[in-house]
Amino acid sequence: MQYYDTIILGGGAAAFSAAIYSARYQMTTLLIHEEFGGETSSAGPIENYPGFKKIDGFELMQNMEEQAKALGVTMVSGKAELTENIHHCFQVRVGKELFEGKTLIIAVGMERRKMGLPNEDALKGKGIHYCVTCDGPVFKKKVVAIVGGGDSAVKGANQLADVAEKVYMIVREKDLHRAEPINFEQLKKKVNVHVLYETEVRELVGEKKLKSIQLSKSINGSVTVDLHALFVAIGAIPRSSIPHELGVAMNDRSEIIVDRMMKTSVDGVFAAGDITDATGGFKQIVTAAAQGALAATSAYHDVGTHAANVCNLHAVPIVMPAHDIIKT
Amino acid sequence: MQYYDTIILGGGAAAFSAAIYSARYQMTTLLIHEEFGGETSSAGPIENYPGFKKIDGFELMQNMEEQAKALGVTMVSGKAELTENIHHCFQVRVGKELFEGKTLIIAVGMERRKMGLPNEDALKGKGIHYCVTCDGPVFKKKVVAIVGGGDSAVKGANQLADVAEKVYMIVREKDLHRAEPINFEQLKKKVNVHVLYETEVRELVGEKKLKSIQLSKSINGSVTVDLHALFVAIGAIPRSSIPHELGVAMNDRSEIIVDRMMKTSVDGVFAAGDITDATGGFKQIVTAAAQGALAATSAYHDVGTHAANVCNLHAVPIVMPAHDIIKT
Repeated sequence: MQYYDTIILGGGAAAFSAAIYSARYQMTTLLIHEEFGGETSSAGPIENYPGFKKIDGFELMQNMEEQAKALGVTMVSGKAELTENIHHCFQVRVGKELFEGKTLIIAVGMERRKMGLPNEDALKGKGIHYCVTCDGPVFKKKVVAIVGGGDSAVKGANQLADVAEKVYMIVREKDLHRAEPINFEQLKKKVNVHVLYETEVRELVGEKKLKSIQLSKSINGSVTVDLHALFVAIGAIPRSSIPHELGVAMNDRSEIIVDRMMKTSVDGVFAAGDITDATGGFKQIVTAAAQGALAATSAYHDVGTHAANVCNLHAVPIVMPAHDIIKT
Repeated sequence: MQYYDTIILGGGAAAFSAAIYSARYQMTTLLIHEEFGGETSSAGPIENYPGFKKIDGFELMQNMEEQAKALGVTMVSGKAELTENIHHCFQVRVGKELFEGKTLIIAVGMERRKMGLPNEDALKGKGIHYCVTCDGPVFKKKVVAIVGGGDSAVKGANQLADVAEKVYMIVREKDLHRAEPINFEQLKKKVNVHVLYETEVRELVGEKKLKSIQLSKSINGSVTVDLHALFVAIGAIPRSSIPHELGVAMNDRSEIIVDRMMKTSVDGVFAAGDITDATGGFKQIVTAAAQGALAATSAYHDVGTHAANVCNLHAVPIVMPAHDIIKT
């Protein structure tokens, strides 16, 4: 068994920011990630993270990893399983290794729902995009499309309309009743958005880069539409197995409900990033990083508060770094 | 008169992040700052902004400025005065120039209260520090002091105790009753903190770097204490003249009360950064940047919602970028 002041689950910006802050608080910190870099690392060039005019998402995450490493954060790669949660003691297993933390920070993020088309993964970041705020501005004066019929698809179409020359909106349903009225009203005013109802994407054409898509229905006599980018906004799936096991309160979108300091409903458990309800549907790298910092700060206060009485059910106590006794 | 979708007041991380996001939403954006760079630019080396292992605060702010400039943000340097606020139209004067915004983002920050000692400004960042979370970890195993008797001073002392070899806490009052009990309990356990009650700092000694301080009372037979750093935690003064004029709701610490999306109590007015109550006493560069992004997002939605009916009291309407009419 290895003991830590805090165990962070996740490999994206929220997780690494939490690790950086946690280590700076002199807490023994373990970060367990199944996939390095989270959403950020595959977002392609990032232009909206304050401080970098332009940086590749993967490079940004490598920077954060290096920063955490330099501060002494222990990192383990693999699938984390929660094995025990007794009185503020969280036991996590990765393969055959067992870890115990006084606090737990959940920053496992969400998975964007995919269309399930053959070359979708291969074209990710190369014309297939999942985040309008992140990648939309790149396609100034270009022809783009967005798939989805929910509110986030409508908001995405509105945003793209302000940037792109033309936006096709591909909607499976026969209307956009799931969108918020305000956003739908805005959409109706966007003269460069062309909504295609009861239409689906059948095929993605392009090898190194998306060239065009094939639709289930023809427009202007053809099922082929040439595009610079296709944005996929058909929802996201929270990675909620561990939150479920811990019994933390979640909202109806399966996001973990947090307060302003990223506390969850379970004592000693904090959350940060896309998995939380902290900023509604607005999920950005900088907001995730801020939430990581907040979660680590809350974990630090929690460890200080419960230092004496936690994780003492087990034979081997957690060894705290001893303060030198200073004589004055 | 010059018209903008949003006018951002402030020159720190919150303001520039708001400007970056606002411009990316294709909003016409004006940033007015009295002092470039805010708290960040004078914090010295920054090691807790995720993505940079180490960067000078001023350089980080220059990066953000460059990023905002590249996106077409208009920047004006000078003192902003609010001259009018009619139905979602905010008129701001800088010198002789008059600007009007559909929305206003307040990111003017807070001013750290200073001790008022002669060479305090000259030694800022060179042994005199105002942020424990930012600068504390640099003084690992060093001898430091913290001035202040409130909760933030106690929390600061606790944090410093985990890093430094020895921490002198210099308290003007005869006890620490203003601290939260939890934090005071923690302080009592920190064996390397030496609290000096009813004591004041009289003099800062050192030219290019702080060498020692002179106290109002002797300890161990001397009023001189050699130090690597002195942290000043005697409160902060919000720059609240414009918030007051606008009539936005503030809490008892004169912080602007915001919701999760940085909306204030006044329609069309958003706030971000240290001036807000968003994260309580935990005010960091990354949280300010996140709040700036959120405020800009809210302003964007607000402009979209009120586009037709605002700022039409004046003769010259705000010219919105026209969307090309696309024929399909």
